[in-house]
Amino acid sequence: MRIVFSLGDPHGIGPEIILKGFLELRKSGHCFAVAGSYNVLEYYRRRLDLPVELERVEDARSLQSLPACSCGVLPVFSVGEPDSIEPGTVTAGAGALAKSSIMAGAELCRSGAFDALVTAPIHKESLALAGSPDSGHTGMLARMFGVASPTMLFADRASGLKVALLTIHEPLERVPELVRQTDIEAFLARLAHNIETDFGMERPSIAVLGLNPHASDGGVMGREEKEFISPAIARLRERMHIEGPFPADGFFGARMQGRFDCVVAMYHDQGLLPFKVLAFHSGVNVTLGLPIVRTSPDHGTGFDIAGKGSASAESLHEAALLAARIAENRNRKTQPSP
Amino acid sequence: MRIVFSLGDPHGIGPEIILKGFLELRKSGHCFAVAGSYNVLEYYRRRLDLPVELERVEDARSLQSLPACSCGVLPVFSVGEPDSIEPGTVTAGAGALAKSSIMAGAELCRSGAFDALVTAPIHKESLALAGSPDSGHTGMLARMFGVASPTMLFADRASGLKVALLTIHEPLERVPELVRQTDIEAFLARLAHNIETDFGMERPSIAVLGLNPHASDGGVMGREEKEFISPAIARLRERMHIEGPFPADGFFGARMQGRFDCVVAMYHDQGLLPFKVLAFHSGVNVTLGLPIVRTSPDHGTGFDIAGKGSASAESLHEAALLAARIAENRNRKTQPSP
Repeated sequence: MRIVFSLGDPHGIGPEIILKGFLELRKSGHCFAVAGSYNVLEYYRRRLDLPVELERVEDARSLQSLPACSCGVLPVFSVGEPDSIEPGTVTAGAGALAKSSIMAGAELCRSGAFDALVTAPIHKESLALAGSPDSGHTGMLARMFGVASPTMLFADRASGLKVALLTIHEPLERVPELVRQTDIEAFLARLAHNIETDFGMERPSIAVLGLNPHASDGGVMGREEKEFISPAIARLRERMHIEGPFPADGFFGARMQGRFDCVVAMYHDQGLLPFKVLAFHSGVNVTLGLPIVRTSPDHGTGFDIAGKGSASAESLHEAALLAARIAENRNRKTQPSP
Repeated sequence: MRIVFSLGDPHGIGPEIILKGFLELRKSGHCFAVAGSYNVLEYYRRRLDLPVELERVEDARSLQSLPACSCGVLPVFSVGEPDSIEPGTVTAGAGALAKSSIMAGAELCRSGAFDALVTAPIHKESLALAGSPDSGHTGMLARMFGVASPTMLFADRASGLKVALLTIHEPLERVPELVRQTDIEAFLARLAHNIETDFGMERPSIAVLGLNPHASDGGVMGREEKEFISPAIARLRERMHIEGPFPADGFFGARMQGRFDCVVAMYHDQGLLPFKVLAFHSGVNVTLGLPIVRTSPDHGTGFDIAGKGSASAESLHEAALLAARIAENRNRKTQPSP
């Protein structure tokens, strides 16, 4: 498979983990390139003394003629070269470059030149300074591809845990209203379909968490379970393997995640708190429902350690391998068996 | 120390874990009794064939003359005897008995007859059927003792983790408003004082989590961090060891909990999701700020396994030992050193 990395925020750990990750991944049999900045990667390569050879590519078309499996050289499609590089700082220029890298990487996948996009972490404040209307990858890619509601899913190969989020980067205040407005039945049906297609699973089993503490304890604390979540699950139960709504703390307390292929959380921290405790360095963020394959590491830009050489590339490494597997599964689905 | 258990919901696992817990605890050097129902305990004792001898006590005053260390006999102060016992069912009678047991147990501590109350789990729906205005122990005890805002804290001896909740059993919809209305500075100062008194720690270190995803990423998603949480922390920093607000998922993802004596979560699931993943069977719920010592296991009534003999008494056992330690620490604080 042919995988393209977007650079991430040039002042975060993105460039570093791309270089480190590539050192491991080049043995994987897949082909890699970066959409971003040659100078930024070269800066971190020198600063951290990483034995990667970079090749500057000015024209996206020449990326298509690269050999199917790279031999230690990482091609870099330059979408912009910053005037200065200041690890750990928030700037509009950094946000703009991060955004251009994502757009270019996504375009390379849309055109068929690459099979999957792996995005390095971006910084929401830099993006905002650069005037981006989207605060994250998922919204940006949704807009680019005209997909109303892609699904954010976190997957961990080591534990087998997959967590999907019904709502994403929203102020907590907005979450209950969004849960009430979402077509939960459609969300869950789409999720099951995407897991089948992308993870090659037949009839995946799905657990749904409640929104309120104790899943509202029968309506004592909150009404969303009774009025919205339970009815959606009831309607789907005939044609899907689905259960819930479960009290979120008790669900993970009783280690029930092992009984399901995927757990649906109602909001960001409800899904990511247990996920990050259970999947330490190896968690991967996947966007389901896009026409292209997109994964990313499950951590942020690490501004506090940027440029210091101590960042772990493990999650990015896992993200690249999962992207390749999803691309393979999608190919298998679309090609009729002989 | 002299510890009294409240029965919990008679149709849940409370009576079972009290009996099982007592079998271990009687060797602890502490003295135990139950405020509840002789018939209920006798029912589960026979049904599960547990080698505990029960002694019915009709008058609270006679509990005060029990020997300081019990020798295998568990005294039961009867506050009510139900007509029928139906494990796993929600009834008003069960809720009423559960509530009376708590009131009686708390009264035995207020009077000085006992040093600490350990409450077995209650069922919110049974309590509501019984007409209780409070949906949980904390509210009930707050009302009884005229304490405006006791603090719910979860402690795990094995991992050393302590998590305090700023808001408790509230619909998620109400949480942001409650966070804005709470005097966070006063809450945190009280918490530090209570940890000093009850856990015998000098100048405990406290981490505060943000309310919104990524602690709002500098205000991009939500405003409570900037307007309410950060200012409170800033004002306290001179006189306390306190840090935050931390993005909740990243905090536990980076295993930062080990660097602090206590982590403050803004709401129920934010604190209990990571707590229950990290503290499996040994988590304990503590109510800080009451004139009496009160702990409880960190799990529910387990209606699905009630009466089956499979419930683990580990959390109740830990709750009783922690109650004894807190009572000892409080005694030490109030008695001037010789």
